[in-house]
Amino acid sequence: MASPGSGFWPFGAEEGSAASESPGTARAWCQVAQKFTGGIGNKLCALLYGDAEKPVETGARAAPGATETRPACTCDKKPCGCQKAEVNYAFLHSTDLLPACDGEITTMSFLQDVVDILLQYVVKSFDRSTKVIDFHYPNELLQEYNWELADQPQTLEEILLNCRTTLKYAIKTGHPRYFNQLSTGLDMVGLAADWLTSTANTNMFTYEIAPVFVLLEYVTLRKMREMVGWPGGCGDGIFSPGGAISNMYAMLIARFKMFPEVKEKGMAAIPRLVAFTSEHSHFSVKKGAAALGIGTDSVILIRCDERGKMIPSDLERRILEAKQKGFVPFLVSATAGTTVYGAFDPLIAIADICKKYKIWMHVDGAWGGGLLMSRKHKWKLNGVERANSVTWNPHKMMGVPLQCSALLVREEGLMQSCNQMHASYLFQQDKHYDLSYDTGDKALQCGRHVDVFKLWLMWRAKGTTGFEAQIDKCLELAEYLYNKIKNREGYEMVFDGKPQHTNVCFWYIPPSLRGMEDNEEKMSRLMKVAPVIKARMMEYGTTMVSYQPLGDKVNFFRMVISNPAATHQDIDFLIDEIERLGQDL
Amino acid sequence: MASPGSGFWPFGAEEGSAASESPGTARAWCQVAQKFTGGIGNKLCALLYGDAEKPVETGARAAPGATETRPACTCDKKPCGCQKAEVNYAFLHSTDLLPACDGEITTMSFLQDVVDILLQYVVKSFDRSTKVIDFHYPNELLQEYNWELADQPQTLEEILLNCRTTLKYAIKTGHPRYFNQLSTGLDMVGLAADWLTSTANTNMFTYEIAPVFVLLEYVTLRKMREMVGWPGGCGDGIFSPGGAISNMYAMLIARFKMFPEVKEKGMAAIPRLVAFTSEHSHFSVKKGAAALGIGTDSVILIRCDERGKMIPSDLERRILEAKQKGFVPFLVSATAGTTVYGAFDPLIAIADICKKYKIWMHVDGAWGGGLLMSRKHKWKLNGVERANSVTWNPHKMMGVPLQCSALLVREEGLMQSCNQMHASYLFQQDKHYDLSYDTGDKALQCGRHVDVFKLWLMWRAKGTTGFEAQIDKCLELAEYLYNKIKNREGYEMVFDGKPQHTNVCFWYIPPSLRGMEDNEEKMSRLMKVAPVIKARMMEYGTTMVSYQPLGDKVNFFRMVISNPAATHQDIDFLIDEIERLGQDL
Repeated sequence: MASPGSGFWPFGAEEGSAASESPGTARAWCQVAQKFTGGIGNKLCALLYGDAEKPVETGARAAPGATETRPACTCDKKPCGCQKAEVNYAFLHSTDLLPACDGEITTMSFLQDVVDILLQYVVKSFDRSTKVIDFHYPNELLQEYNWELADQPQTLEEILLNCRTTLKYAIKTGHPRYFNQLSTGLDMVGLAADWLTSTANTNMFTYEIAPVFVLLEYVTLRKMREMVGWPGGCGDGIFSPGGAISNMYAMLIARFKMFPEVKEKGMAAIPRLVAFTSEHSHFSVKKGAAALGIGTDSVILIRCDERGKMIPSDLERRILEAKQKGFVPFLVSATAGTTVYGAFDPLIAIADICKKYKIWMHVDGAWGGGLLMSRKHKWKLNGVERANSVTWNPHKMMGVPLQCSALLVREEGLMQSCNQMHASYLFQQDKHYDLSYDTGDKALQCGRHVDVFKLWLMWRAKGTTGFEAQIDKCLELAEYLYNKIKNREGYEMVFDGKPQHTNVCFWYIPPSLRGMEDNEEKMSRLMKVAPVIKARMMEYGTTMVSYQPLGDKVNFFRMVISNPAATHQDIDFLIDEIERLGQDL
Repeated sequence: MASPGSGFWPFGAEEGSAASESPGTARAWCQVAQKFTGGIGNKLCALLYGDAEKPVETGARAAPGATETRPACTCDKKPCGCQKAEVNYAFLHSTDLLPACDGEITTMSFLQDVVDILLQYVVKSFDRSTKVIDFHYPNELLQEYNWELADQPQTLEEILLNCRTTLKYAIKTGHPRYFNQLSTGLDMVGLAADWLTSTANTNMFTYEIAPVFVLLEYVTLRKMREMVGWPGGCGDGIFSPGGAISNMYAMLIARFKMFPEVKEKGMAAIPRLVAFTSEHSHFSVKKGAAALGIGTDSVILIRCDERGKMIPSDLERRILEAKQKGFVPFLVSATAGTTVYGAFDPLIAIADICKKYKIWMHVDGAWGGGLLMSRKHKWKLNGVERANSVTWNPHKMMGVPLQCSALLVREEGLMQSCNQMHASYLFQQDKHYDLSYDTGDKALQCGRHVDVFKLWLMWRAKGTTGFEAQIDKCLELAEYLYNKIKNREGYEMVFDGKPQHTNVCFWYIPPSLRGMEDNEEKMSRLMKVAPVIKARMMEYGTTMVSYQPLGDKVNFFRMVISNPAATHQDIDFLIDEIERLGQDL
């Protein structure tokens, strides 16, 4: 295994390691690791001993015990050459890789070395003794390394170094203490599937060039519609580049359903439309309205109760008001799992109103849709089966790698009519196979990335019950956190009662603010607490959790759990860390 | 290396192999391969000998010569265990992988086995003796394997089998004889970068969670703007999910620039807009107009000359006509590299007209943008530096893995004003770092996949000069094809003269139609020729090339070359294959 010379290695000894705490275990574990192929055993051992800078087999800086405990290889040369190819990347360039003549060995070796770097990163991602982030300010990071693009090629040695450097400064989004976003965790089967997707490197527009992936999209979307509760899984759908685009699709299709002439004639030909969503809904509803030429003023925000759920009576009132003004209500976007509170809008009551006024009902379940996998929690989405369309992002609560977002539509054929443009160079009508599998023309995109395979393979690997267990565990952890802090000194909950999703919203009140009256001074000081603690978390690199203000509530922490790697100990750690970093404020 | 038991292997002996043609070379090559780590050497050897069903090291069905010619390992046990870990996947599930306690070894072993499958696929992709596609009709493919999703988990053995099966039926888009789309080829550095991107598994919305990738997007977009010719690379931009969305962004921003009130008030508040593009332009311009509420009727198609280039005088005439009707021209979308003919619109003349009438000039260089990397060919885009926005898809002519599309905008800040919604939970204004790096709010998407890294790493590996060489080579090959068929019996060119891009459009005239008058009968028979040849190509799996009708021209082949793996021999092969498959028609 060639060692790109610079000695620049992402997993330095300074971070410490689990093994250094118990060298006996490490040694036993290293013995097992040595059975492993691809030089990985050596690297794992080195890692365990807190020194991965040089692979063991180079003979330099060998991890203690690594060579003498290597049980599998009994050849007489030490270090033996049987486990490595001598490739000196310092003299090689990308032009030496395939499709170069005789490029196979160099290519396999190069890709294997990249994989070794990635596998180490994966192992480190789950290691609590490593940092979640090695934070650098943007200007620092720009100066830390030369990131510029040049006329001349770099060597493959430099390319491997680029990979290591990139990962050194990356956030370990799979780390058990990374709670910053709705999408966290790193699923091993999902990762494998994404590597395969990259290798297959194709495009979803036709069956012709993505036969398996097109079928898997068909199978997977049907299964998701079954989970939503549409009979036989009937309907339509697509994997789109994220929840915001899925929501935009819903708005686009709802408009087309009511006024199909809009496709040719534009908004000029139809009455003024209005859409409704809650004041806690995701900003993409407004973003979509701006893009589609509807305008953000035509998105009416419905009031929420103190738990962040849309109030149906306010929805009805605002619908009537809009109608009186001569506007045409065409869409209600209910939210199943709001971004900040994790609230579930009352879907049954909303469905009744939509039915009464003949309005398209969309459910934005980007975050909460995952709960449909759980027999214990899916009641929170009761009524979703009455929706006309549903956004559901498996890349959030189900832990599928980014990105994977589905829009599901109850009525079949509508997406196609809405979006098709009949490009004859792509969707030829005289092909020799069943053209219903050429689904590209129902998309807004022309080329479309393969997002389905990672979800499909994870579903095969876990089964529905596996997703259920994973999701139930995250919700249980959120409840654990809630129970732990609800009456704890120095904490105040943003809303009362057990969280419905894994969102736990709270203020940490430093000792200096405790007992103060809730006046302006306290609020202006409290407002600064979460940002400072967060900045310190990032500088220490120990954990990451999000914060934000909401309405008249000053900055509070929004804890979310979607990473199956998290445990009770990680929740305990988070609380201790917030107190450690915030007690002097 | 555990061998998932079923004997189901994607690269069966029935496809033949290069090695079986020259066993001496294969043996020498195998000797080299044996130096390789990870059991890959054995698999490569087995592959060379046309029998990859069982890895050599199991001792069963060893490839002839493989064990005795293995020079690197000198240990005394045969087969020796030093190169494999004994992991029996038949009893393991995804729950045994990380983050499971003691999941490291199983995880590394599993991911390594996936990588072995992928590496074999990669090597096969470049092997001309393998099929481009193992075609099955949709219903056949659905029955060939059980693709369904179930409640219960599968074992890791089954998961590996799923991976092999998926690749067995995949199109080898990197195959030197795959010419079907504008995106072909499989770049090894790009692939490595995409694997790294999957492993880092993050999201582009903030610097906080994607520090390196955000900086690399900044560096790369600036460099691309420099290549476009904007002074100092100034301006704005974003990587979007494909060229259609990039074009839609351009339309959205152009509208906002002229009528910023559209964001809040919608199309109802502004005059009727019209956009202009050529009749050969990409369908995404109309698709975008439909989505944005402008309407497809408001996209006016400008006539093209016989080479597929927009006629500027017709553009000016139609602008005046629209203005007379009281409509407001707001966008001209010129095309640099049309999809079918590969034509470059006359950008300087169009820029003059846009300037005269104060219309936003967009250049859709999704396909042709790559030519900016070539000193020999970039003149075809002269005038692009006068555009207000440019679409440029590195996943097409530059061979970057899918997907990678950039929208470049000359005026800075406009995208942000157009799309921002100030979500306080994501874009907190009191963070501790420079917020100009939180670029997520200028996107239509909320979450956004990391598409930049593969382009950046490839650029580092090739340098601008490497991309140039690659692109020049593809254009040279297209010219070779053109010269070879322009006067050849049985061929008729769709348009006269040397192609400007790598698009070579032609009819193959089977012997039975040669010498016939160009009457209706001939056309109705000629129309069927390309579809039948294409269907036969797919059934034999030997090559793939696209065809389509255009205007009054019946189905013709559109050959494009963007794969650096293609050679003169592959072009010769294509011609021979068309003649072989079409001579009886």
